[in-house]
Amino acid sequence: MTTSHPAACADSELADPRAARLAARSGRLTGYTSRCAPGYVQANLAILPAMYAEEFLRFCQRNPQPCPLLDVSEPGDPTLPRLAGDLDIRTDVPAYRIFKDGAFVEDVTDISSYWRDDLVVFALGCSMSADHALLGAGLPVRHVERNESAGMFVTSIETVPAGRFRGPMVVTMRPHKPADAIRAVQVTTRFPKAHGAPVHIGLPELIGIKDLTRPDFGPERVAIAADEIPVFWACGVTPQVVVRHAKPTLCITHKPGHMLVTDLTNDSVAVL
Amino acid sequence: MTTSHPAACADSELADPRAARLAARSGRLTGYTSRCAPGYVQANLAILPAMYAEEFLRFCQRNPQPCPLLDVSEPGDPTLPRLAGDLDIRTDVPAYRIFKDGAFVEDVTDISSYWRDDLVVFALGCSMSADHALLGAGLPVRHVERNESAGMFVTSIETVPAGRFRGPMVVTMRPHKPADAIRAVQVTTRFPKAHGAPVHIGLPELIGIKDLTRPDFGPERVAIAADEIPVFWACGVTPQVVVRHAKPTLCITHKPGHMLVTDLTNDSVAVL
Repeated sequence: MTTSHPAACADSELADPRAARLAARSGRLTGYTSRCAPGYVQANLAILPAMYAEEFLRFCQRNPQPCPLLDVSEPGDPTLPRLAGDLDIRTDVPAYRIFKDGAFVEDVTDISSYWRDDLVVFALGCSMSADHALLGAGLPVRHVERNESAGMFVTSIETVPAGRFRGPMVVTMRPHKPADAIRAVQVTTRFPKAHGAPVHIGLPELIGIKDLTRPDFGPERVAIAADEIPVFWACGVTPQVVVRHAKPTLCITHKPGHMLVTDLTNDSVAVL
Repeated sequence: MTTSHPAACADSELADPRAARLAARSGRLTGYTSRCAPGYVQANLAILPAMYAEEFLRFCQRNPQPCPLLDVSEPGDPTLPRLAGDLDIRTDVPAYRIFKDGAFVEDVTDISSYWRDDLVVFALGCSMSADHALLGAGLPVRHVERNESAGMFVTSIETVPAGRFRGPMVVTMRPHKPADAIRAVQVTTRFPKAHGAPVHIGLPELIGIKDLTRPDFGPERVAIAADEIPVFWACGVTPQVVVRHAKPTLCITHKPGHMLVTDLTNDSVAVL
């Protein structure tokens, strides 16, 4: 969706996750969060009316790699106290995207006017924690080096349906040298809440990817060197695509790249 | 080295590792150990004069994936009490291979006549524990299905030298479907004492393998399907090749496929 992540959150006060949220709340931060509060978990956001909540919860339970649930709110409750102190989900994300009946309506920086007593907030892990861990392990991550998002591809892998929620899995592709690819499996396995281990490696044609240089979302073109193999991880765009196909009467997501910054450290969500 | 592993150790008494060793000691067991004492660790064997021991230890320390050291004896001591109770290394392995100055001399079933007070015994982990874990995880292992050894390839990956010990890494190749390859990385990572995680994946030409269907050791030909990728693990043949290149005055190894059966369970050597 996004082709680059300028450092919208470079101000020194934004090293702290709460400061980043307060900056979003006050309207000072309306840009990308990729450089906000390094080392802290950022989350994908989906907000749905309660009538869809049980089905969507079941969908996430059945598809934990694309949909790693971090937390779910009580209906009508705009807080997520297990993820962030002093959070108001209506104001604390830099930008939101509004969909009605599956159709895009507008991008906004505050969803107070859309808030209803029956809305349920779903916070889903995103791959930033995995990228952080890969970089920490000394593995080059091409899209981070290029200040882009990873190339994203719609695959022929079907998610496990739940009620109205169904559709293809979207994956990100990171090119790695073979030994690094093995290390990347190990490193990301520790982060099931950030999509976990890869879902596919090599042989893109087996998952319906016809042209590895032309992602469906993200940068227009991605490159892979002769000494690299493509490694594919489940992507947080999957639930967005699935939710839109389900055409709920209302759906609010974060604007891509404009994430919910939580108080959880990446290390705290690692297993092992 | 070996192209098939007939069930030389199928007798019900050989479900127990000590029974397998006693059968070897008495001369009743002189064949392959692949089906002896399932669930117990089997070991590669290298016996060298003490004058080579420090260098070989350093070599193993620097190359833990091809040379995962399980135990080392005191000079002249034919027991390895941490690996097996009541063990006499001179008689309890079904068959041995004798090398002098790097040249093959003979295969024997008892090394008592070669035993000296300065010999040091090295027991090195082998991939059987990894295969056992892969099968236990529900992953097909082609060479086990075919009752063969895995295809082994001499690579362009250089081991880290130590004194006179140096040479290319030998690897085994297992073909896996992509999602299974990712799972195989996870499963074998738990077994550093059985060569651990793969060292390479895909792209055989990058590690000097010109023809993936023609291994240097093992079956004459191996096949890989269009929906599989080759996964490469460090192989216990590496130290044998390296030791022979170093041309020690005397070197005794197990005969390939005729392993030391230990009292350690596979689960006991798993990390995590």
